[in-house]
Amino acid sequence: MGEFELIQRYFARGPAPGQRTAGVTLGVGDDCALLQPAPGMQLAVSCDMLVEGRHFLSTVDPARLGHKALAVNLSDLAACGARPLAFTLALSMPEVHTAWLEGFSRGLFALADAHGCELVGGDTTRGPLNLCITVFGEVPAPGSPRPALLRSGAQVGDDLYVSGSLGLARLALEVFRGTVSASAELFEAARSRMEQPTPRVALGQALRGVASAAVDVSDGLLGDLGHVLRASRVGARIDTPVAMQLIADNDLLTGGEGHFSSDFLLECVLAGGDDYELAFTAPTAARDAVQAAAHATATPVTRIGVIEAAPGLRLVDAAGQPLERRYASFDHFA
Amino acid sequence: MGEFELIQRYFARGPAPGQRTAGVTLGVGDDCALLQPAPGMQLAVSCDMLVEGRHFLSTVDPARLGHKALAVNLSDLAACGARPLAFTLALSMPEVHTAWLEGFSRGLFALADAHGCELVGGDTTRGPLNLCITVFGEVPAPGSPRPALLRSGAQVGDDLYVSGSLGLARLALEVFRGTVSASAELFEAARSRMEQPTPRVALGQALRGVASAAVDVSDGLLGDLGHVLRASRVGARIDTPVAMQLIADNDLLTGGEGHFSSDFLLECVLAGGDDYELAFTAPTAARDAVQAAAHATATPVTRIGVIEAAPGLRLVDAAGQPLERRYASFDHFA
Repeated sequence: MGEFELIQRYFARGPAPGQRTAGVTLGVGDDCALLQPAPGMQLAVSCDMLVEGRHFLSTVDPARLGHKALAVNLSDLAACGARPLAFTLALSMPEVHTAWLEGFSRGLFALADAHGCELVGGDTTRGPLNLCITVFGEVPAPGSPRPALLRSGAQVGDDLYVSGSLGLARLALEVFRGTVSASAELFEAARSRMEQPTPRVALGQALRGVASAAVDVSDGLLGDLGHVLRASRVGARIDTPVAMQLIADNDLLTGGEGHFSSDFLLECVLAGGDDYELAFTAPTAARDAVQAAAHATATPVTRIGVIEAAPGLRLVDAAGQPLERRYASFDHFA
Repeated sequence: MGEFELIQRYFARGPAPGQRTAGVTLGVGDDCALLQPAPGMQLAVSCDMLVEGRHFLSTVDPARLGHKALAVNLSDLAACGARPLAFTLALSMPEVHTAWLEGFSRGLFALADAHGCELVGGDTTRGPLNLCITVFGEVPAPGSPRPALLRSGAQVGDDLYVSGSLGLARLALEVFRGTVSASAELFEAARSRMEQPTPRVALGQALRGVASAAVDVSDGLLGDLGHVLRASRVGARIDTPVAMQLIADNDLLTGGEGHFSSDFLLECVLAGGDDYELAFTAPTAARDAVQAAAHATATPVTRIGVIEAAPGLRLVDAAGQPLERRYASFDHFA
């Protein structure tokens, strides 16, 4: 199968006539795709590259990989509060493997369709397996009452929140690595979190005009939160027992898997990576609005701390006493 | 060196305050970059992935590679007549090699600056060397008197043109492969064409409202022209002796390198690949306007044929008689 037949068969799945995504003027098949944000809107752009053996195992179900490759990009849009519009896919692979391509494109398009996000272009080539997606979303231009969420807006006194749960993806990775063991049921749940993350796209949009800053948690909570703190020139205090509930509240963990040390679970929560939840800040006056956004989008959120003036991150125990602990954020070159 | 220091040192080279590229609201350093085309404009998007050993030799000068990685993307913008605005870069590399990164980023930014194209985001990770750039440009929205150039606008009777020259990149590749030999001077000139192509960005913009269709020549003239013919539902006739001049006019070839067979040179012109010239069509009534666009942008153009109703591509000799010859377009999976 040649390059053009490959694109035609697996990826050139244009919309039905008249059903083109609003904002996409021209999709796959020319030198460029053409995008036009609605009047008063701007385009949010993000780009993530996934490498075999680094971001995913060679044995991963290709449909799950298709999902994840797009999900990690949609998660960046979510962190800006952008509505997904379109994406490009560049794909390098060692050979044309039709079953793999069928599964990969199925998983990819299932998530794309769920978010109304159209594949508008890309590239395919032969080489070590590598997936690079650039995603485009729409957000109101600056000056809007509900502008894009940035990392730089956190204010002293703001509450600090995290969506959903944290740490299961890391738990799955440690099972794969053989450093811990888990029941089949817990492993499946954790593996699904690692391989098929849920980008918090609806929550991100609902938080525009409510949250003061946001980031998506991809490299570990503490590391990603550090980006917000540096960009906003503030610090934060995290209530560790509350943060711990972001993993420990899982029924599978409370029901008889008590062999995990609390140190291990806390590491998973604070520095796990691959979570694709949102960490965000909001004024205390917006607590009801945050809960309303969470409720409207059926996404749990947990208030885990507070923004403070002193730079840096402080972990405190139930009595408010500091915990001394260091966690590394995930770094591909460290 | 960690991932964030690497980005900071080599790639987070934001514009001076107040000097941000028009259209770029937010650059490197948040979850997303924010782009806003001017009123009445839309965004042209293209994406190309370059893999070591496939698109470039491991021995290539990193500054030339930085240039080429962006140039092949700018060439897609040129084919749409778009003005470059911004790009994202995803980079996978086996290790942090500071001399390589210094050279690569230098070549990349030299070309980016020459076109006012700002790096607004990306990703870095460890893995086999792979460069994926997504580029953004601005074109007038549909309905404008000078809209984006598409592949689908060629009309029966239109002239067929090519910019610059064709075939030298392929000649250099064949020297590297050892199938032909060349003087040091010719090899250097050809190698420079292969490693540092010149995207025809100014010509593409000047051809909006003049040309009826355009494509950039990256996989070989006949193959890329085929995309225009299929999209426009037309055919074409190419005057082979004229096309031959696209390589043979080179002083280095006419001056004593007569050992290349005309078959070889014609193959380089028609199916060479890596040329990054524009192939375009225009009504005969626009001949003066085409020459004016060429002159205004200091880019030579050559009229090599004509668009016809009968599907397919016909090569004819000086007497208008058909040549029987088959050429393969470059295909990564063929």
